[in-house]
Amino acid sequence: MRYVYDYAEEAPGGRELLGGKGIGLAEMTALGVPVPAGFTITTDACRAYMVSGKQVPEGLDEEVGEHIAALERQSGKRFGDPSDPLLVSVRSGASVSMPGMMDTILNLGLNDVAVEGQAATTGNPRFAYDSYRRLIQMYGEVVDGVGGHRFESALADLKATRGVANDVDLGAEDLREVIGTFQRIYEEEVGSGFPQDPREQLRRAYRAVFDSWDAPRAQVYRRHHRLPDDIGTAVNVVQMVFGNKGASSGTGVCFTRDPSTGEAVLYGEFLVNAQGEDVVSGIRTPEPISAMREQMPGTYGQLLTTLDRLEAHYRDMQDIEFTVEEGRLFLLQTRTGKRTATAALRVAVEMVSEGVISREEAVARIDPEQLDQLLHPMLDPTVEVEVAAQGLNASPGAASGEIVLDADTAEMRGKEGDDVILVRWETTPDDIHGLIRARGVLTAHGGMTSHAAVVARGMGKPCVAGCEGLSIDVRAGTVTIGEHTLKAGDVITIDGGTGRVIVGPVRLVPPAIDENFDIILDWADDVRRLRVRANADTPEDAARAREFGAEGIGLCRTEHMFMAPDRLPVVQEMILSRDETARRVALDRLLPVQQSDFEGIFEAMVGFPVTIRLLDPPLHEFLPALEDATSDEMRQRIFSLHEANPMLGTRGCRLGLQFPEIYEMQVRAIVRAAAAVEARTGEAPLVEIMHPLVGFREELSRLRALTERVAAEVPSVAYICGTMIELPRACIRADEIAEVADFCSFGTNDLTQTALGFSRDDAEGKFLTYYLEHGILERNPFEVLDQEGVGELMRIGIERARSVKPELKMGICGEHGGEPASVAFCHRIGLDYVSCSPYRVPLARLAAAQAALVDSGVTALVIGG
Amino acid sequence: MRYVYDYAEEAPGGRELLGGKGIGLAEMTALGVPVPAGFTITTDACRAYMVSGKQVPEGLDEEVGEHIAALERQSGKRFGDPSDPLLVSVRSGASVSMPGMMDTILNLGLNDVAVEGQAATTGNPRFAYDSYRRLIQMYGEVVDGVGGHRFESALADLKATRGVANDVDLGAEDLREVIGTFQRIYEEEVGSGFPQDPREQLRRAYRAVFDSWDAPRAQVYRRHHRLPDDIGTAVNVVQMVFGNKGASSGTGVCFTRDPSTGEAVLYGEFLVNAQGEDVVSGIRTPEPISAMREQMPGTYGQLLTTLDRLEAHYRDMQDIEFTVEEGRLFLLQTRTGKRTATAALRVAVEMVSEGVISREEAVARIDPEQLDQLLHPMLDPTVEVEVAAQGLNASPGAASGEIVLDADTAEMRGKEGDDVILVRWETTPDDIHGLIRARGVLTAHGGMTSHAAVVARGMGKPCVAGCEGLSIDVRAGTVTIGEHTLKAGDVITIDGGTGRVIVGPVRLVPPAIDENFDIILDWADDVRRLRVRANADTPEDAARAREFGAEGIGLCRTEHMFMAPDRLPVVQEMILSRDETARRVALDRLLPVQQSDFEGIFEAMVGFPVTIRLLDPPLHEFLPALEDATSDEMRQRIFSLHEANPMLGTRGCRLGLQFPEIYEMQVRAIVRAAAAVEARTGEAPLVEIMHPLVGFREELSRLRALTERVAAEVPSVAYICGTMIELPRACIRADEIAEVADFCSFGTNDLTQTALGFSRDDAEGKFLTYYLEHGILERNPFEVLDQEGVGELMRIGIERARSVKPELKMGICGEHGGEPASVAFCHRIGLDYVSCSPYRVPLARLAAAQAALVDSGVTALVIGG
Repeated sequence: MRYVYDYAEEAPGGRELLGGKGIGLAEMTALGVPVPAGFTITTDACRAYMVSGKQVPEGLDEEVGEHIAALERQSGKRFGDPSDPLLVSVRSGASVSMPGMMDTILNLGLNDVAVEGQAATTGNPRFAYDSYRRLIQMYGEVVDGVGGHRFESALADLKATRGVANDVDLGAEDLREVIGTFQRIYEEEVGSGFPQDPREQLRRAYRAVFDSWDAPRAQVYRRHHRLPDDIGTAVNVVQMVFGNKGASSGTGVCFTRDPSTGEAVLYGEFLVNAQGEDVVSGIRTPEPISAMREQMPGTYGQLLTTLDRLEAHYRDMQDIEFTVEEGRLFLLQTRTGKRTATAALRVAVEMVSEGVISREEAVARIDPEQLDQLLHPMLDPTVEVEVAAQGLNASPGAASGEIVLDADTAEMRGKEGDDVILVRWETTPDDIHGLIRARGVLTAHGGMTSHAAVVARGMGKPCVAGCEGLSIDVRAGTVTIGEHTLKAGDVITIDGGTGRVIVGPVRLVPPAIDENFDIILDWADDVRRLRVRANADTPEDAARAREFGAEGIGLCRTEHMFMAPDRLPVVQEMILSRDETARRVALDRLLPVQQSDFEGIFEAMVGFPVTIRLLDPPLHEFLPALEDATSDEMRQRIFSLHEANPMLGTRGCRLGLQFPEIYEMQVRAIVRAAAAVEARTGEAPLVEIMHPLVGFREELSRLRALTERVAAEVPSVAYICGTMIELPRACIRADEIAEVADFCSFGTNDLTQTALGFSRDDAEGKFLTYYLEHGILERNPFEVLDQEGVGELMRIGIERARSVKPELKMGICGEHGGEPASVAFCHRIGLDYVSCSPYRVPLARLAAAQAALVDSGVTALVIGG
Repeated sequence: MRYVYDYAEEAPGGRELLGGKGIGLAEMTALGVPVPAGFTITTDACRAYMVSGKQVPEGLDEEVGEHIAALERQSGKRFGDPSDPLLVSVRSGASVSMPGMMDTILNLGLNDVAVEGQAATTGNPRFAYDSYRRLIQMYGEVVDGVGGHRFESALADLKATRGVANDVDLGAEDLREVIGTFQRIYEEEVGSGFPQDPREQLRRAYRAVFDSWDAPRAQVYRRHHRLPDDIGTAVNVVQMVFGNKGASSGTGVCFTRDPSTGEAVLYGEFLVNAQGEDVVSGIRTPEPISAMREQMPGTYGQLLTTLDRLEAHYRDMQDIEFTVEEGRLFLLQTRTGKRTATAALRVAVEMVSEGVISREEAVARIDPEQLDQLLHPMLDPTVEVEVAAQGLNASPGAASGEIVLDADTAEMRGKEGDDVILVRWETTPDDIHGLIRARGVLTAHGGMTSHAAVVARGMGKPCVAGCEGLSIDVRAGTVTIGEHTLKAGDVITIDGGTGRVIVGPVRLVPPAIDENFDIILDWADDVRRLRVRANADTPEDAARAREFGAEGIGLCRTEHMFMAPDRLPVVQEMILSRDETARRVALDRLLPVQQSDFEGIFEAMVGFPVTIRLLDPPLHEFLPALEDATSDEMRQRIFSLHEANPMLGTRGCRLGLQFPEIYEMQVRAIVRAAAAVEARTGEAPLVEIMHPLVGFREELSRLRALTERVAAEVPSVAYICGTMIELPRACIRADEIAEVADFCSFGTNDLTQTALGFSRDDAEGKFLTYYLEHGILERNPFEVLDQEGVGELMRIGIERARSVKPELKMGICGEHGGEPASVAFCHRIGLDYVSCSPYRVPLARLAAAQAALVDSGVTALVIGG
């Protein structure tokens, strides 16, 4: 087994074997791009080291020795040479970008003798001593675990003694003194002197890189990003080049295009007579890259040519590091550049028009989650904020505004044009007018499916819910947010995308949809197979969804219509009715309003299907809390409707079967609305009537009969009748259920609750949070579909349903329908459509396209590898 | 297609084609047993009739005509003959016993003319007129739907006019008048005169039998007994024989053995000079069968010989009807006799020693559910009771006793030897001392898993729970049960096997386990493959389970130990602890009591495995209701532990992961107990530690590590570590979970709740009751395993788990483990054991044996066909 490859050699294993840095340097070498000489110790070596219980694999030291010898031949310098030593850097480089591992040791090869030789050879003793003291510090920290603070405070002490402010103000002799101090520190901490043998330095350095693969923070990072533990890292040993050798030297980083706008201009920073470390550590302020053009025009021209060549080779924007040593350009790293969403879209679109990439590749390259940035205002990422409290990221976007503690004030102030944030323990349907006028909402209670969260998401308005650090004293008009006590009228900022709550205003970045957004999504639509619908309960939502490209409504929840403040009293009257007759009287009053709801939605979605789900939640959700009951009768009814586990109680089709008059009213309203809209617009709405929470064929069979009986009252209206699949039993017996369904839509919110036995209300902020914090679960299954569990149930459901009806239309209408990885899964298991909140529609369109592109072999490049 | 078979012919289709009655008559004919001549119209004819929309199949009338002609030839009588007419009976007879269908029309063939002929020929006009008026009445009722009350009141009027009390006191002329009256009634109701053509009578009669197959009550019966709708019924047309032709005639019913004790003696009733109807209608009181020996010794001898032949042929106790017509014996029906549980056991055991059947057949013949009769006192089935209210059948057995409204009084009175029933809204752990001393418990709230239900089942004590008709006024010392208002001290009777509550005492039948019980169960043990364990939480339960033949404990619930009144305060202290340190202090106090619990259980189960489930329920179950909190701290903690859906909240292994110190204490108590018991008894307990509510491999993997770490403190103790499978995800991912499990036990109570989305607390008495009453579901899935849904998930789980560990030990510990059909299912899907409550162990042993016998082709005979 061979463990080491020179950059100039062709290695058999690519990125997996050489890691991201190594493959970049090898590829640049092959392209003829100037890079320093060096070699890679492969990930094979690291894996062998780990598997053997930290034994350096046999022959590795010898191989490294041979490659060092080759480096010596090539450079004409010798490792440990007392007069002009060969110096190298040692860096980790896994196949995927992985912060948290050992980074870099520079200047390896120096020792007490060689440093003097270098001082003499370069004629720059300060440079040589500085290099050596950096080596001792970095080596001590990363190889031997010496606390960095010891070195830093020693340096600070010396600066104080000398009365200088900056490192650069220390002279050569000062640095020589620092070296002595650092070596004493090293010896005190490690128990032996700083190693003088460069080969020992190197051996211990690459072992340290291997060891850093298993460091706790690297493990945490991998777990969080679902990276495998066993791929290991490569180690790069590269000859040092020096940008700090005077005016003809320098160092820089640059992007081949502007990573913030995407414009095709060189973008970066340059520092003459400096090492990369100086830029990173902020010791000196770098100049824009254009400064280099003036200071060293020839090398600049060479840089431009090189970058063109790299972009042409990698066919994507590159992020590179380079050093100029006495006029000679060296590229130290190239990788695909990270970019903002705006830039990502522009680069992709422009590269297509430049003929560099295909439209499909352009589509494959956009991170769907990044699109969300474009649809909502965000906190300015350049501003540092102090987070006062953390809640659930219940609805994305950010907003600043004055604290308002009741909905009436929020409505009034909002109408006057003031920016207000509605702050409540929790919201109820009675607060809706305040929600409409507020910039955002913050609640102390409630989860991702609480009233505030659901309503805010529908409106595309920021919401932070379940914020445990929040408490409210309405009478005193004060709120406590973490450590801060504020009063109504004080300004706070909420970030619904992350759940952060900040005291005071924060600069926001407005949403920015430009033409590139539409271009990419048009291309995405050309390649995707999955249809994308929206979950929308109002004509406004439907219209917005349509603007975002929704191809219908996959879930119209009729309960939100019941919650509207003008209807709630009638709904309550219906629930409090003593018998069916009285219930029917109340329902007759609801009928025309339901009909007008549906008319609005049908009109907004003309030409596209609209799936209306009949009443789902338990009836007690429409009644006030027991202590707020206004009559004994109401108290009695609230008591009798109380359930130990309402999630698993009398709701969904169980309601529809026990109180058929409710569903009858709804079906009647639907078909009458459809007829009215057809009469008005000349186009027949595509009506889909959906029964929730079905677990048994018999349930759907009876409700289908009910639907058909009532719909027959308006025989001109065509419709189809189907069900949600949101119980494990429905997945398992989807074959039987499919026999009486025209379509099935997976309700993965409830399916996740039942399949995992996780009540969302009780899990988030409680044991689920504990699970996520302690790595028992990697992802919140309510955000990212649990593909192995819930997804496997869906797969079984699809297989069984289609065994009976091969052409059965099947979709998903849980919130996962707007999450990219889950959308890709839905594509793979053969669903026909996904349905998500209007604001997630663009993202779902893109994710669906990318999933289709994977089938045809087009995948995204690794970003930031 | 042929639709009619004479009893003397060999028919190709057996019971399915001829029905139970028909096949019995045909087989008796073949055996040479004297039966009246006749024929069967097959179930094929009925099916053809139904499928064609009630068209009599072509050729049927002709075929019936030919068979009537054959009957005429054989009997020498003619149908409709004015002097000596052929009379027949017409009866339905499906392949399975099915009450609710048309029963019998006797004397068909009489008309206004023939009745006079018969009067003359028999010399018994009263007999002839009585036969005819019966025909008009039966025919009018069953063929033409005339209300029976019209005939009955006309008869009553005449008796009043004549001043006589009984039908038999009416003379021939009276009956002739009755005929006239009945014919007028018939004509008024039907619109035409009573049909005089015997062939028309017959044609309409068998159509009426076909129609009765679809009568609502027959449909309800089939749905309830899960019988298919499309098998149809046969029709038997049999020549009339008359037991009412004088002193040498008679009629009787008898069993070949005593159906109540099983003793091998003839058992039955006889009535000289009577028709079967007289016996059934209670007009005359029959004599014991022995009376026949004196009255007609020859015929009696012939009957005995015949019965011996039938029992030998059918190899089971027979229930027969016979008629003696002028000294000639005719058997009218034979079927396997229904019997009490005691008799079933005795008959089976004795038939084995008689060499009639094999042991396996004996085992196959016992209805497992019947065994329950033997283990609990029951209401005397001969006593008619008025049910005052109906609750859930929460724990089987019946008890009468005085109403007591609090546990202290129940304990005191019980200790004094009084029979008391504890009547409560619901019980809590604080009531346990009262429960122990009461004969039974009745609660208004709570379901099958309520405290009262679970504790009562464990004690084998009757419990009726969730009785909606019950309300209690503790202050006034009164209770309302349905319409009755009672006070403490009044006697009530509860039947925990059916949920009935009766005011006043009812005679009880004591439990009766005899040696036959043990013999049959020993034989069952010889053939079953499934192991049977018990769910037991105390040494007493464990000992009882062992007496009943349990081969270990499949579920020892540690929470019941936490609930004990002397421990609850310490448990509450533990829960109220502010931090882990304080929690550990309280847990240290619980450790020795837990250890002593486990020692007792291990000792009781020496030699058998004991599966201990670590703490499962949410912590708030150990705290009082919010309003009963005794401190602000407690109130605060109750509030913070409140969950919207506790069933899906922080419980099971989620508790164990968040508060590892609780499970650590439990594991420590287990291994210390095991070591102590081994030291005392010299035998090492077989310890199985079970983690509840696992859904993800990572959960069990961490808890296994915790278990191993703590158990290592007592390294001498061997144990295995496994999990419950009670979430759909755990079934789906049983492969991954099995990797870190030594055994898996399906918790089908919770698996049913999650797979179906049915909260048991909210379903029973609410929507589930509605579903069962309206036929949406046929069975309560918490009583009888939902094999198609929950069972299919189990099948998938077993398949996937064993794909990883082919030898993995798998069992079930939900309540379904004691339900016969579910036990059979567990056998079929390959489980290793079932675990059920101690009182269900015998039943599970028998059911497991029967399931194994099905594999080898031994099945039970059809009882009562």
